[in-house]
Amino acid sequence: MKRMLPILQWLPNYTRQTFSGDIVAGITVAIMIIPQSMAYALLAGLSPEIGLYASIVPMMLYALFGSSRYLAVGPVALVSLMTASVMGGVTASGHVDYHTGALVIALLSGILLLVMSLARLGVLATLLSKPILSGFTSAAAIIIGMSQLKYLLGMHIPSGLNPVEKLYFALSHWQDSSLLALFVGISSTLVILFSGRVLKRLLSQLQPSVTLINVCSKLGPLFAVAIFTLLAWFYNWHEIFNLRIVGDIPSGLPSFGMPIIDRDLFWELLGPAILIALVGTIESISVAKSLASKEREKIEPNRELFGLGMANLGASFTGAYPITGGLSRSIVNYSAGAQTPFASIFTGLIVLVVVLFLTSWFYFLPLAVLSSIVIIAVTKLFDMKGFMEIWRYNKGDAISMLVTFVVVLFRGVELGIFVGVVLSVLFFLFRTSQPHVAVLGRVEHGHFRNVLRYDTKGPSNLLALRIDESLFFVNASYIENLISEKMSTHPEIEHLILVCSGINFIDSSALETLEHLSEALKEAGISIHLAEVKGPVMDKLSHTHFIQNLTGQVFLSTEDAFSSLASK
Amino acid sequence: MKRMLPILQWLPNYTRQTFSGDIVAGITVAIMIIPQSMAYALLAGLSPEIGLYASIVPMMLYALFGSSRYLAVGPVALVSLMTASVMGGVTASGHVDYHTGALVIALLSGILLLVMSLARLGVLATLLSKPILSGFTSAAAIIIGMSQLKYLLGMHIPSGLNPVEKLYFALSHWQDSSLLALFVGISSTLVILFSGRVLKRLLSQLQPSVTLINVCSKLGPLFAVAIFTLLAWFYNWHEIFNLRIVGDIPSGLPSFGMPIIDRDLFWELLGPAILIALVGTIESISVAKSLASKEREKIEPNRELFGLGMANLGASFTGAYPITGGLSRSIVNYSAGAQTPFASIFTGLIVLVVVLFLTSWFYFLPLAVLSSIVIIAVTKLFDMKGFMEIWRYNKGDAISMLVTFVVVLFRGVELGIFVGVVLSVLFFLFRTSQPHVAVLGRVEHGHFRNVLRYDTKGPSNLLALRIDESLFFVNASYIENLISEKMSTHPEIEHLILVCSGINFIDSSALETLEHLSEALKEAGISIHLAEVKGPVMDKLSHTHFIQNLTGQVFLSTEDAFSSLASK
Repeated sequence: MKRMLPILQWLPNYTRQTFSGDIVAGITVAIMIIPQSMAYALLAGLSPEIGLYASIVPMMLYALFGSSRYLAVGPVALVSLMTASVMGGVTASGHVDYHTGALVIALLSGILLLVMSLARLGVLATLLSKPILSGFTSAAAIIIGMSQLKYLLGMHIPSGLNPVEKLYFALSHWQDSSLLALFVGISSTLVILFSGRVLKRLLSQLQPSVTLINVCSKLGPLFAVAIFTLLAWFYNWHEIFNLRIVGDIPSGLPSFGMPIIDRDLFWELLGPAILIALVGTIESISVAKSLASKEREKIEPNRELFGLGMANLGASFTGAYPITGGLSRSIVNYSAGAQTPFASIFTGLIVLVVVLFLTSWFYFLPLAVLSSIVIIAVTKLFDMKGFMEIWRYNKGDAISMLVTFVVVLFRGVELGIFVGVVLSVLFFLFRTSQPHVAVLGRVEHGHFRNVLRYDTKGPSNLLALRIDESLFFVNASYIENLISEKMSTHPEIEHLILVCSGINFIDSSALETLEHLSEALKEAGISIHLAEVKGPVMDKLSHTHFIQNLTGQVFLSTEDAFSSLASK
Repeated sequence: MKRMLPILQWLPNYTRQTFSGDIVAGITVAIMIIPQSMAYALLAGLSPEIGLYASIVPMMLYALFGSSRYLAVGPVALVSLMTASVMGGVTASGHVDYHTGALVIALLSGILLLVMSLARLGVLATLLSKPILSGFTSAAAIIIGMSQLKYLLGMHIPSGLNPVEKLYFALSHWQDSSLLALFVGISSTLVILFSGRVLKRLLSQLQPSVTLINVCSKLGPLFAVAIFTLLAWFYNWHEIFNLRIVGDIPSGLPSFGMPIIDRDLFWELLGPAILIALVGTIESISVAKSLASKEREKIEPNRELFGLGMANLGASFTGAYPITGGLSRSIVNYSAGAQTPFASIFTGLIVLVVVLFLTSWFYFLPLAVLSSIVIIAVTKLFDMKGFMEIWRYNKGDAISMLVTFVVVLFRGVELGIFVGVVLSVLFFLFRTSQPHVAVLGRVEHGHFRNVLRYDTKGPSNLLALRIDESLFFVNASYIENLISEKMSTHPEIEHLILVCSGINFIDSSALETLEHLSEALKEAGISIHLAEVKGPVMDKLSHTHFIQNLTGQVFLSTEDAFSSLASK
């Protein structure tokens, strides 16, 4: 019970001190995420209040079911981009309205995450290797950045263009851009980047607590929002200069209910929902892990899947959209002193108050300000340094990364990740397909080493091979070719000893290959022997034709094999 | 030069004895494959002479370029089925005529095989694991068998039905079937199955050479063809009972030239051509290998690809269709005493003579006889015993096999093999994702073993883990979780020693995981040390942040690590 509901672990030990930490963290995170949530909702192609809804119930549900003490869930850039990318296709087919589609994706993602959690399939997420994720996030940074051009330049850019075309369109239509929007965007960016630093310096003369400094350095977006909302209101920018502002945000609670879903929609959105669930999970778990390990705690991936699944279900029932654990908000939560998931519940309550009573405050907020928040967030996603490191370390991984990057950029997120996964699996199979095989010789009694590296002695009528890999369909024929090669070049050999110390598993393809090999060598007058077979492997093998018809023997040690087989 | 043209190896040593062996084998194979080639051409949906063409030039080209002394290439059942299956879809789109399509597939397969040979990509073929091939061939046996129902029952069965529907249609329309066709089919089957045996017994009283017995036991199809062609001619079955016969076969050489190919056709047929090339290669190489190993010779896969590629190009230029090395014809070739590839050249010459002058002999040959030849050949493909063995040995492989079988049977060859490959790769990744990790303790000086199996001693402030698998993206987070788990449950640990004796490779995902782990453990006050790192792994690692910022040391041996880190 305690495993399923972490609240039962922390609530009984709740103290006044824990409470004060949680309250400060809750307030800080709320201040940070209110503009951020609206910005990400716009990025996803939804109206701003939907971003706020996504920061209420989902956040609280994660706090109840998730395993991380510090993770703050809600809208994030990558998932917002992916939602926009999917819904662009779906609404083009005219099947369903945009927001319903986003709700259905959240519903499907939530169900998938719960199923994966119960089936302990968290391992699936490992298929998205680091190079793939890095290529994807770098491309996503560019796509997201270019998607904000229309707000930053206050111009209309046709949808359906790829990022490079968008940039080209903007440059070739520069005369249509709004200088005011550009001014607001740039100065808002500067405010966000530097206000924290300035404030920190001012404060440090007063020598306040570290927590207060941390909190204040995150207030940049709030300042930018406040300053430019006031300016826009005071100078009536949106009427005089036609500056795009947030406008009416409906106040009150989101409508509650399950989105309606039919069979066509289900099949159309299942693939994207899987991808969004996986990408979201990876982002979230990596954040949760890095915070947990600072405190020498442990994140259980399958429990995380459960918490994120519940949060996404909550999102789909309360008119929000797909969410996951966010990097920056979680770090703020942690460094502002959060002690328990109650901090997130408190954040959710503050956002709820804003949604209920304060939405009108954001009426004059220029969209260019929200764009600057998005752009600052996504510049961290572009990973040139990572690419250079990977390139230096491993060319295969670098190629996977580059291909993923290019395909995501020009052909879309789903295809890009798919191609990347296929490529990295192929590279992986290719590497595993040629395992290291050593010819063993005796160094001294009981000690056997690679004949290429050590000065060894051994009888010439036998060959001992140590295969340093489990035998699978990907390497079975490589091993077979290698053995036939050795046999055809050493006609004096009568006994082949397979030293199995490195073999943890033999699949049925490899087993059949061994059988063929055994038959073929039998006809050529060579017997096969096994040595140092691991227990579980032998259990499996003992009932097979291969062992029953083995031309040689099974030896416990290589020494036994050598001493009993050496030419008499 | 000798590597590229094997003829330069055997021709200089050619003797009269070698010649006599080759001549006998050449004649035997020719007698066997003339009806077989026509039968397979019908199976592929082509007219009978095309099967004969496929046994002339391709056979000779393989003899010049292939690496096997005994392999006989030409039409085979699986490739014929796949051609039929692909072309059914292509001609339905009305784009191109049936035979041109088959020529284009041969052309593309040939080019692909040559490219794979030059790029040494023979390893790709290993992706089709044994369970996949077994599931595929079993389903193919049923599909091929049911496709012959229309000839065996002398009735019209609509195309486009799946095998089960075909059987149902035939049973529910039994009153339309021709008793004569059924009689011919069944008695021809009996003739083929038993004539060899009867003849063998009669001959053995005369004590002839083993070769003669071997040759005669393969004459069944020839007898069946002769008997029923004569009967059909004498009693005029095709006019009186409307029995379907082969009819006119154009005599003379096939037209020579490259098939015309446009871009649409290229993209439409590329996938099928890849699949046909792979399946053909696997079948062919496995035959060549098993024959070569009997003589303690070696087959070089990339050279085989080259020979098969040239043979397929030859097929596409001489009005044939995709071919590969066949099991039964190669065994006959070998056991009839072939000594060099000249046997295949001689077979090709005989088939050429037949095509030039003797096609009219086959006018009255009933199609039901050809069907019986096909059916006898494919019954060997159905692999129930293999399935039972795989099921007993490994459930995952058995599931891959079963799914492949069902999908091939009901949804087609391409989808079936694709699903099978994806499944087997997923099972493979799943197994590799959870490598064996042992906690090591000291048994005696310099000897370290798994603490679960041996009574060991070790200082409590350090933990030594031996990971028995290369570190890849598929197992990186598993390892990370496992280590965090150990760390959070053993607060007394100060040093983590990773014993890397089983690690042959670390990819960049795993490297990043190690970096994260190192940072996280640093904050928790634990240092990471490495021991027994292999040379090539260390070469790669030495330039990375991970090693440069390593909190601990790199030790040569586990003993060194233990003695210098044990709590002072």
